[in-house]
Amino acid sequence: MARIAVVGGDGIGPEVTAQAVKVIQAVLPGVETVDYDLGAARYHRTGEVFPEAVKSELAGFDAILLGAVGDPSVPPGVLERGLLLKMRFDFDQYVNLRPSKLWPGTSGPLGAVKPGEIDFVVVREGTEGLYAGAGGVLHRDTPAEVATEESLNTRHGVERVIRDAFARAQRRERRKVTLVHKTNVLTHAGGLWARTFEAVKADFPDVTTEYQHVDAAAMFMVTAPSRYDVVVTDNLFGDILTDIAAAVTGGIGLAASGCINPERRFPSMFEPVHGSAPDIAGKGVADPVAAVLSASLLLDHLGHPDEAARVTEAVAGELAARTPGAPLRTADVGDRLAAAAS
Amino acid sequence: MARIAVVGGDGIGPEVTAQAVKVIQAVLPGVETVDYDLGAARYHRTGEVFPEAVKSELAGFDAILLGAVGDPSVPPGVLERGLLLKMRFDFDQYVNLRPSKLWPGTSGPLGAVKPGEIDFVVVREGTEGLYAGAGGVLHRDTPAEVATEESLNTRHGVERVIRDAFARAQRRERRKVTLVHKTNVLTHAGGLWARTFEAVKADFPDVTTEYQHVDAAAMFMVTAPSRYDVVVTDNLFGDILTDIAAAVTGGIGLAASGCINPERRFPSMFEPVHGSAPDIAGKGVADPVAAVLSASLLLDHLGHPDEAARVTEAVAGELAARTPGAPLRTADVGDRLAAAAS
Ligand SMILES: CC(C)[C@H](C(=O)O)[C@@H](O)C(=O)O
Ligand SMILES: CC(C)[C@H](C(=O)O)[C@@H](O)C(=O)O
Repeated sequence: MARIAVVGGDGIGPEVTAQAVKVIQAVLPGVETVDYDLGAARYHRTGEVFPEAVKSELAGFDAILLGAVGDPSVPPGVLERGLLLKMRFDFDQYVNLRPSKLWPGTSGPLGAVKPGEIDFVVVREGTEGLYAGAGGVLHRDTPAEVATEESLNTRHGVERVIRDAFARAQRRERRKVTLVHKTNVLTHAGGLWARTFEAVKADFPDVTTEYQHVDAAAMFMVTAPSRYDVVVTDNLFGDILTDIAAAVTGGIGLAASGCINPERRFPSMFEPVHGSAPDIAGKGVADPVAAVLSASLLLDHLGHPDEAARVTEAVAGELAARTPGAPLRTADVGDRLAAAAS
Repeated sequence: MARIAVVGGDGIGPEVTAQAVKVIQAVLPGVETVDYDLGAARYHRTGEVFPEAVKSELAGFDAILLGAVGDPSVPPGVLERGLLLKMRFDFDQYVNLRPSKLWPGTSGPLGAVKPGEIDFVVVREGTEGLYAGAGGVLHRDTPAEVATEESLNTRHGVERVIRDAFARAQRRERRKVTLVHKTNVLTHAGGLWARTFEAVKADFPDVTTEYQHVDAAAMFMVTAPSRYDVVVTDNLFGDILTDIAAAVTGGIGLAASGCINPERRFPSMFEPVHGSAPDIAGKGVADPVAAVLSASLLLDHLGHPDEAARVTEAVAGELAARTPGAPLRTADVGDRLAAAAS
């Protein structure tokens, strides 16, 4: 039976994660979950963000369910880099998967786009690019200061994530992959991405493809989001595009994500895209839907596609039944979703 | 009297630029304009993109008005890098200015945002960052291939563009500057930008400031575009954000831009954000409004704020009087705008 590490984290993280756990237990009775306290509180108590001993323990789980990390009391970047990015890199979670859907019953900011008309997934590279941390500063705090950031891209890293995107497209109805980069300016990395894309494409003759520069893609995600099916792109472009995608589908409140090591050599990590929302923490009013959708991605990854589909359908039912703007109770939503998915 | 070099370029470029010239001549009688043929046709004829001799001539003008460069027959990147980016870098056009406005009479894709509610300007750095071209490829076309791109940032380059943004904010009603970067991941360059921003801010006590990560800014530009006044950011983030800005204000069809060397040591270049649109080229149906708005930025830069304002007002009148979707003739629009601005 699957073993899942649960990192509730900060703010509303533990509240929404508790609902996701509830739902997982409902569809996968007997699943084992173990809580880990990582995040701002532990950092303040011990000065530690992600101790090696904890990392070794987590490495033994099948998957990790994460709530949110981050609190105004912690210097920006400390938890993000020390925990989130460290997990992505050390657990080789090279597929950062972010589905975007305008759910029936909800509404987005685009006047002309109706629910059901947006349904794509961004496959964001998760272990390379500008996130490698390469770079430096010279002559700091003088007029002569220079600062560099280096984007590192390997054929190994680019090919595996493009391959994953094509494989996902092949399992979807429209079977289309859009490569997003900036090949007209970033010629070195862009060339590697474009040539690798062409090479992989040959292995998926039933998948149609297109290429877009990142600026054009950022625009089309607002003006014509329905055109996308699977989007594959690098780490930083993926970071930006998935936030636009969340925006046009009604905000990050509903957006789920998975940081996936497809080979399952390391545990994959699943988390809502939203943050810790300290302003509403502890009040029991946070919407757990993004956490529950992340749990659905987790179930799918662990080889339980039927259970995953039941959870997604439960969410679809919940959203369709909601009165926009009506208050909700976190635990009630969790109970309803668990019951509906069972 | 001002001397302006006109580079019509490809596709609809010459058509829309002709209207912009018409309007400039109407408000600045006696202005001297000289046409230069750069773009796809010249490239095919001579193999040259931007000959040094032409560059030296252009350097002698007060400003450059550009239509659009790019044609499917030219390999991607050749004209963009050889002409556009070369001009920005060699003429030290470090302020890439892109105003965004949802004009009365037009409508954008955001259901809840009314004309007049979006009015901000992005000050995009134009001579540094990932656009420097630094990087390389090793072991090309082998499984061991690596490709790098390096973002180069100097205190010199960052400070001058941030200073420009603050100065612009000071001349606007809301007096607010938003710095956009990704300091939680790009710590080296992000640190330089953030520290420089703090230092410059001290000189503009009447300007309010905020900081946003680029992913959050990309989202808010869709969900809350009214919150922005002046946005300052690096070259690549600016490229992406200005396309989102164009999208939420009704598409790049109306977006103007200036690549500015504020000290006027080199000529600045003004161009519509839209491309050469080869599909409608030569038909006389392209909308010249973005080119004319770019001419307004040019007039302002050359020290003619009243003439610039008259041109902008003429455009506002034109847009307010239009029937959405009604066909237009490029030259008629130019005539109307020239008459209205005179
Ligand atoms: C918190 C931050 C480091 C992270 C990222 O940039 O990847 C976040 O924006 C995300 O998209 O998961
Ligand atoms: C054509 C391209 C090189 C250019 C850029 O990336 O700056 C364009 O996208 C722009 O925004 O002016």
